[in-house]
Amino acid sequence: MPVKNDTITCVPGVRVGQHTNNEDVTGCTAVILPPEGARCVVDVRGGAPGTRETALLSEGSAARVHAILLGGGSAFGLAAADGVMRWLAERGAGLSTAAGVVPIVPAAIIYDLATGNSVAPTPEMGYAAAEAASVAPVACGSVGAGAGATVGKLHGRAFAMKGGIGSTSTVVRLGAGEFTVGVIVVVNAVGDAWDVQRNVIVAGARDQHGWLHGRSNLVHDRNARPQPGTNTTIGVIATDAPIARHCLIRMVIGGHDGLARAIRPAHTAADGDTLFALTTAPDERPMETIDVLRIATATEHVMETAIVRAVQAAETRGGLPAARDLPPYL
Amino acid sequence: MPVKNDTITCVPGVRVGQHTNNEDVTGCTAVILPPEGARCVVDVRGGAPGTRETALLSEGSAARVHAILLGGGSAFGLAAADGVMRWLAERGAGLSTAAGVVPIVPAAIIYDLATGNSVAPTPEMGYAAAEAASVAPVACGSVGAGAGATVGKLHGRAFAMKGGIGSTSTVVRLGAGEFTVGVIVVVNAVGDAWDVQRNVIVAGARDQHGWLHGRSNLVHDRNARPQPGTNTTIGVIATDAPIARHCLIRMVIGGHDGLARAIRPAHTAADGDTLFALTTAPDERPMETIDVLRIATATEHVMETAIVRAVQAAETRGGLPAARDLPPYL
Repeated sequence: MPVKNDTITCVPGVRVGQHTNNEDVTGCTAVILPPEGARCVVDVRGGAPGTRETALLSEGSAARVHAILLGGGSAFGLAAADGVMRWLAERGAGLSTAAGVVPIVPAAIIYDLATGNSVAPTPEMGYAAAEAASVAPVACGSVGAGAGATVGKLHGRAFAMKGGIGSTSTVVRLGAGEFTVGVIVVVNAVGDAWDVQRNVIVAGARDQHGWLHGRSNLVHDRNARPQPGTNTTIGVIATDAPIARHCLIRMVIGGHDGLARAIRPAHTAADGDTLFALTTAPDERPMETIDVLRIATATEHVMETAIVRAVQAAETRGGLPAARDLPPYL
Repeated sequence: MPVKNDTITCVPGVRVGQHTNNEDVTGCTAVILPPEGARCVVDVRGGAPGTRETALLSEGSAARVHAILLGGGSAFGLAAADGVMRWLAERGAGLSTAAGVVPIVPAAIIYDLATGNSVAPTPEMGYAAAEAASVAPVACGSVGAGAGATVGKLHGRAFAMKGGIGSTSTVVRLGAGEFTVGVIVVVNAVGDAWDVQRNVIVAGARDQHGWLHGRSNLVHDRNARPQPGTNTTIGVIATDAPIARHCLIRMVIGGHDGLARAIRPAHTAADGDTLFALTTAPDERPMETIDVLRIATATEHVMETAIVRAVQAAETRGGLPAARDLPPYL
């Protein structure tokens, strides 16, 4: 019997492949898109991002991208996108030019060098991730780009927990028909991860007595001491709805709003929070305002859920406890 | 005995004046800054904003502004900034030029034309608001730019409630000393207003049985029918900390994160959500990352609190019930 899929690979045209280096506790995740490309926007809200190809996506033209690479390894991990490009080029996917195809592969990375052995994903790992791409449900937790992710670092690594990668999806009924919205997100935030519905922390800064409630205490707590440039939440939002660029922008903003609710604090100077939003639909149709609200609100929901899933599926690594291995605090 | 002030006028250099047209249920609010100007940034996250001077603030130069005008009247209300400019020019405040001063007065407006008699604030009302400016605690609720504000409009005006204007402040201890962070915000959102700490709706779409939980139901509820272009949350974040432009950007992003938590959904295609962040400090000093996090997190908190205060202080007007006049649902 097939497994029910409620991850981003439910979105028609989206395949995901991951490669995990368990020994060094790092990895990368490739989101593979249709050969003709997907229209894509980006929204960077963190103060310390590590990315490729965001300038292209900031232009008004709603550039088409052929894959997106999420990876560990800090800025070194951006190299993994090279491997995804090679994999796509071998298959003739990319921007068509007189000298052959040029695959467009935006990328964003997290800092995970201190979790394992300070090893970054390589072009070969990026290639392997692309090679593994399928429409199977996305594995969540300490795999791919989430392998070395950590969370709740406002009081330093001694009080932090294991982060991870999470993915969810939902179906939205719009005037033009039913469409899917899916998210994949790597949670490596300086802040705590919250279950928005239950209004509780699910993974964050804690000691033996319980949560340190990083955000609430941050303003006055003299012990808070986050490391700059070593945290981030990155992700991809995908849909098959035939939406225009302005609606992709509403979706990516909805994604960041979900992120702001599920990560507290979010978007800090010590984070590199970056989200991509794309549609696999070849063309766009006019859309009523109510439908724009619906699809953006659905994006908020799946982002909140994917963040919770990322930390709940995480496994204890590098001395950082996972949520599943801690006694319940609440 | 002096009244304890915990509003934005606690920030040294910030005065606030409001003018309310009670008959027509509209008004405007002027935030008056030091004559030499305050360094200011803007962050527009709504799909339907109504503003003046945002292009200037989007430049890298951290332009100095002499006042900010928040008003009702939809785009017509932008005229009220003319009156604030005249008031400032009469006092010699503004950018110095060979032909006299040019006061820089960014502005943002809300749609309130349907609450009262479809009258917009005039230059004379802007002038009166500036003339009334003082360091007294800011009056909250159905006054100034909040006079005609409404909230919880995802199911249309029949299920909406009265919004308003709110202001709070807090003190942050940074390496460089103690500084104040204050917020003033006009809540006219399509979404519901939430008390983030208690995790409950305080004002939003409701019927006789209770809250309609607009956001949760939006994706699938066929009755949701918001009006495009007639909603918005606008505000000003102010501090006296000697911060650089990149830190003002962290503050305005923190403000939008607080907004995203306290307004659900926020930043929609039907909202014009716009926040300004400014410092009255004449110059900037280097700041540690932890202090940037502290001041941005303090901004989130005061934004969340100010939004709750805006709707809790609101009074029933134009047939729209205020939170204080409804039976408690929870």
